[in-house]
Amino acid sequence: MKVNGKPYRSIWLAPDGERVEIIDQTRLPHEFHVAVLATLDDAARAIRDMQVRGAPLIGATAAYGVCLGLRDGAADRDMERIGAVLTACRPTAVNLRWAVERMRSVLLPLPEEERLAAAYREAAAICDEDVAVNEAIGNHGLQLIEEAWKRKGRQGPVRILTHCNAGWLATVDWGTALAPVYKAHEKGIPVFVWVDETRPRSQGAGLTAWELQAQGIEHRLIVDNAGGHLMQRGLVDLCIVGTDRTTATGDVCNKIGTYLKALAARDNGVPFYVALPGSTIDWRLHDGIREIPIEERGQEEVLLVRGKTESGALETVRIAPDATPAANPAFDVTPALLVDGLITERGICPASREGLARLYPEMA
Amino acid sequence: MKVNGKPYRSIWLAPDGERVEIIDQTRLPHEFHVAVLATLDDAARAIRDMQVRGAPLIGATAAYGVCLGLRDGAADRDMERIGAVLTACRPTAVNLRWAVERMRSVLLPLPEEERLAAAYREAAAICDEDVAVNEAIGNHGLQLIEEAWKRKGRQGPVRILTHCNAGWLATVDWGTALAPVYKAHEKGIPVFVWVDETRPRSQGAGLTAWELQAQGIEHRLIVDNAGGHLMQRGLVDLCIVGTDRTTATGDVCNKIGTYLKALAARDNGVPFYVALPGSTIDWRLHDGIREIPIEERGQEEVLLVRGKTESGALETVRIAPDATPAANPAFDVTPALLVDGLITERGICPASREGLARLYPEMA
Repeated sequence: MKVNGKPYRSIWLAPDGERVEIIDQTRLPHEFHVAVLATLDDAARAIRDMQVRGAPLIGATAAYGVCLGLRDGAADRDMERIGAVLTACRPTAVNLRWAVERMRSVLLPLPEEERLAAAYREAAAICDEDVAVNEAIGNHGLQLIEEAWKRKGRQGPVRILTHCNAGWLATVDWGTALAPVYKAHEKGIPVFVWVDETRPRSQGAGLTAWELQAQGIEHRLIVDNAGGHLMQRGLVDLCIVGTDRTTATGDVCNKIGTYLKALAARDNGVPFYVALPGSTIDWRLHDGIREIPIEERGQEEVLLVRGKTESGALETVRIAPDATPAANPAFDVTPALLVDGLITERGICPASREGLARLYPEMA
Repeated sequence: MKVNGKPYRSIWLAPDGERVEIIDQTRLPHEFHVAVLATLDDAARAIRDMQVRGAPLIGATAAYGVCLGLRDGAADRDMERIGAVLTACRPTAVNLRWAVERMRSVLLPLPEEERLAAAYREAAAICDEDVAVNEAIGNHGLQLIEEAWKRKGRQGPVRILTHCNAGWLATVDWGTALAPVYKAHEKGIPVFVWVDETRPRSQGAGLTAWELQAQGIEHRLIVDNAGGHLMQRGLVDLCIVGTDRTTATGDVCNKIGTYLKALAARDNGVPFYVALPGSTIDWRLHDGIREIPIEERGQEEVLLVRGKTESGALETVRIAPDATPAANPAFDVTPALLVDGLITERGICPASREGLARLYPEMA
């Protein structure tokens, strides 16, 4: 997508054809800064410190991390070490291990001297595939926005509520939940996005608002408490969110708070859709609430808020008394029953075992 | 309630018997500072700048504001001017006008020289009545906590989720939603409170957490997104919230986000109760969603967060890009259908026209 009129992905090969460049997401929305990754350690740090985040982008960064590591040696034992360094960065990130495994399985059969060039080709392929998958999600989801616009008699913008950041910054390009929004905007359908702040990390305020502003898409930031009220008053036409993990039965595990918006959507007859690449479906899982363990993250994410002071400095402030303890479950599970449909790269289906099996017969 | 072991109300007469002292709530939770109100202007500023907030406390402060104003003259024209200054401070606060009117109706029939002393007596009576009402709410609500404890076989604490601050700082003492919690704690029933942060103004993080800590009641701060997940996992035994305005049919208009918690409570079979003094019931209203206008407050409350930096300074930070626009509806309406009961100073009743009419036959 474009930033200041110039097209970007969230990760790309530097002009020297060896180093890798990323948008440092820890400095958004207050600074747009491109960071250069020259070594395996740079890539590992970018993942660990969340300069890159979002499952697909973490996978892409890990793939390029393998390339950077191989520049210092491409023996089998180098491959082992590189894989270990990268997978340790965020132990629970499924895509991270998936990308490292994919690189290993392509590279290990090759003679050492061919591995580096092959690694760069494979990393580029992983990125291009992610872009294609997300663009397909965008094209399928576009239908829903077109239908909503028709229902409104093509009057006024289609008002879409989203939670967290499932935009292009979470992927290599296009995003998942926001891909249909970008496609609709491209096609000239007027869209307006209600952006949930998404405490505790405020990815809505920091990343989604920034993305939409850069693309010139009308939007307003709201606190996470506001969505239900807006739906009650008829101000939301459609909800689209992402998912970190999806069961074979269509339950979705996404950023904490998604479930509350799904309840409000159901109570007010607002369509609630979840956008996802097939890779997020965990075919072994059948009951999200019982089977998906929810990561409990650090209390400081709840107790501290980071932002820009009036003088322009980045600062962190504590919002509660010094001794206040916090709890910080990072995700929640929205039961399939509350989801009107899943938007995948293969089309839209009901959030059910049958729906998913029809789109992914080889997996079900 | 106690602060550092010493009993306080949120407003009281100074030792000189003339000035008035308050807890400056704009400096909580980071500083406990008692502010002295010596003049009408001091009282007006305290209300306007939200050093005092919460409908009952605003009313009590206005009553004492009349006293302070009368010290400079007690003629009818002085009374007019005092009333005008105070009611202009927060135009939508029902209790503010109510308190000023009550003072006028008591004082105007009296000879000028008797008005000042009578004003101090009446202001004290308003405060004492508020305390008695809230204590009665606490005693009635205590039953619910006792029942929840019995249901748990008297094992482990009763886990109560609350939203915003409906504690003693919002009233003269005891609070509304927290009054039953304080009564249960006093009685030795183990209680634990999940404290919703309550964006945008974070009254949960700043005031409710501070109150509970001062009383030694176990609690954890959570983001507003987390409550649904906690209920799904069986970690909430009871929800109690306050209300700013209640319809004759039992719909409640409370801090934005209350409705989302009520939906989650219903979806998970968690009892959802609303605590209120009868004075919040607007007997002319019969459909909260259609009839209650929702105040849209300034965007800055959403875009900016105030807290304490590591160095101890109070600082405000912006969490979104500079140009991001926000929407800020301050309240939402929870339909009576989602409310298991209303806890009033006259007892607990169903959230319905019939329930309220039984408790307040003279009003219905």
